[in-house]
Amino acid sequence: MKILILGGALDHADSDGALHELTSLTNDEFFFNSEELTDDQLAQVEVILGSAPKVLERIFSLPQSQLKWIQAFSAGVDYYPLDELKKRGILLSNVSGIHAEPIAETVIGMMLAQIRGLKSAVQNQQHNIWQSNGVSYTLLRDKKLVVFGTGHIATRIAELGQAFKMTTVGVNHSGHKATGFAKTQAITHLDETVLNADVMVNTLPLTEETKSLYNEPFFAQLTNAPLFINIGRGLSVVTDDLVKALKQGQVGAAGLDVTDPEPLPSDSELWQMENVMITPHVSGLYEEYVRDVVDIFAENLHQFQENETLARNEVNLEKGY
Amino acid sequence: MKILILGGALDHADSDGALHELTSLTNDEFFFNSEELTDDQLAQVEVILGSAPKVLERIFSLPQSQLKWIQAFSAGVDYYPLDELKKRGILLSNVSGIHAEPIAETVIGMMLAQIRGLKSAVQNQQHNIWQSNGVSYTLLRDKKLVVFGTGHIATRIAELGQAFKMTTVGVNHSGHKATGFAKTQAITHLDETVLNADVMVNTLPLTEETKSLYNEPFFAQLTNAPLFINIGRGLSVVTDDLVKALKQGQVGAAGLDVTDPEPLPSDSELWQMENVMITPHVSGLYEEYVRDVVDIFAENLHQFQENETLARNEVNLEKGY
Repeated sequence: MKILILGGALDHADSDGALHELTSLTNDEFFFNSEELTDDQLAQVEVILGSAPKVLERIFSLPQSQLKWIQAFSAGVDYYPLDELKKRGILLSNVSGIHAEPIAETVIGMMLAQIRGLKSAVQNQQHNIWQSNGVSYTLLRDKKLVVFGTGHIATRIAELGQAFKMTTVGVNHSGHKATGFAKTQAITHLDETVLNADVMVNTLPLTEETKSLYNEPFFAQLTNAPLFINIGRGLSVVTDDLVKALKQGQVGAAGLDVTDPEPLPSDSELWQMENVMITPHVSGLYEEYVRDVVDIFAENLHQFQENETLARNEVNLEKGY
Repeated sequence: MKILILGGALDHADSDGALHELTSLTNDEFFFNSEELTDDQLAQVEVILGSAPKVLERIFSLPQSQLKWIQAFSAGVDYYPLDELKKRGILLSNVSGIHAEPIAETVIGMMLAQIRGLKSAVQNQQHNIWQSNGVSYTLLRDKKLVVFGTGHIATRIAELGQAFKMTTVGVNHSGHKATGFAKTQAITHLDETVLNADVMVNTLPLTEETKSLYNEPFFAQLTNAPLFINIGRGLSVVTDDLVKALKQGQVGAAGLDVTDPEPLPSDSELWQMENVMITPHVSGLYEEYVRDVVDIFAENLHQFQENETLARNEVNLEKGY
């Protein structure tokens, strides 16, 4: 089988040789440089790993293209020509779920950095200062963790929260049950179950419903000065309102991996607020990323070669995810 | 029953009113100021919560002392006159185990701060800099965690490590099995099971055996440049040897809550090493401490009033723990 490896895949460092290992273990023919391929060769490609819009256009212009399946290197696939894929009956799979572990680890890390005094310690360390006074230390144990969203990422955050003996509440559209959560609540019914959180995490994607969801009226309802963590999208938070809520104490502390605007401008007040921790949109990054994508691809490839179906992560081309 | 609250107890802020709650819920008579008590009153005290050497001396000088039980506010009880207590048949209980949760949370926090780029982020935040380059991000998942010690604290660290899908190995005297650990190894047989750790945590108390345990020959055996975390005692590590091992890459990074000497001098090289995180001996601190001590005390008090025995945490006065 002829397999073409494109952009998305090649942009990531194959640090532990996963991609190389894959190509050496099967009898398939792998191409890495699409520009060197003739039209005939390109037409014979049945499988693509990664993305490169121009190469796809070129393939679609070839009358005898054999392309049957594309494995994306990302969770979101909105940059693929979904209608065209559907029309041609080409399967598309993503790597949805792959970011759950790194993001959940970062989220728990942000919690612990705030409540165990690690942020203060790093700041003092900059000045060679051994100083424990003026820092308050508390525990995750017995605290209430409210996660907005109950998907892969939210579930993993909740599972880890439970390992730390936190009480977990998930917020989703209808309040339907979800793994990892002791309780769930509909986003349209935000009562005490949600509003007295000790830690609140936004994992929701950006939609009309979630744009500016965390604004002044929202923060004004909070009763327990939570640590507010955002690893979803910056535009879900009204930045000025968050700053105000932090100053007024409605929000006790914040951990922000995404901001609005992004990058956060150097003159933002948030940078120097004692109870704020900012990471530069990196919560999903990890060295073993290529290895995990290749694992999904290899599993799909195995099944695809048997019966031209995919084992996992197939995108519904109507819905786009 | 007459109960005297002393030093150790009163030195801690009763931030959530646990102590106050205890005294208001029972019919016992509580005394908070030992200096105002007459000899007669002091002689009638049956239970002490906390410690104050001079008050104990005064009590022991009274021929009709009714003292039967002391609940310490600490895990270690070497500062009590153990022989005298034994001679007089006075029970002693400690709060051993109470530090497991805060210390384990700090240890996991140190791991995540290093591997999820949080330390770098805090440093950049000091300068209002949004910068993700030059930081390597990895995961706890699938990493090997080796903990020296398999007591309360070590077990809790291992349990949390397992929640992060780490492989856990415990090192103790004989290699006996221990909760939370997939494998255990005797400290006298340090082979690959231990030496290829990704993360290594010292929880051992200071003894002749553990003094300078982590020295140049020890670090030279490590094969996987682990993150080395010490929340045990500073003197278990030869500081100069650790600095050297960090420079030579035998140790990949370090998280130190205890150091030798302590406080760490401001001219120590460790402060400014990029891959080192230092916390000022605070891993056991937490606001809810008094609440947890009072919970242990209340449970013991309940049983003591029934049959003059203790429900938990009784110290063996021969062994001293």
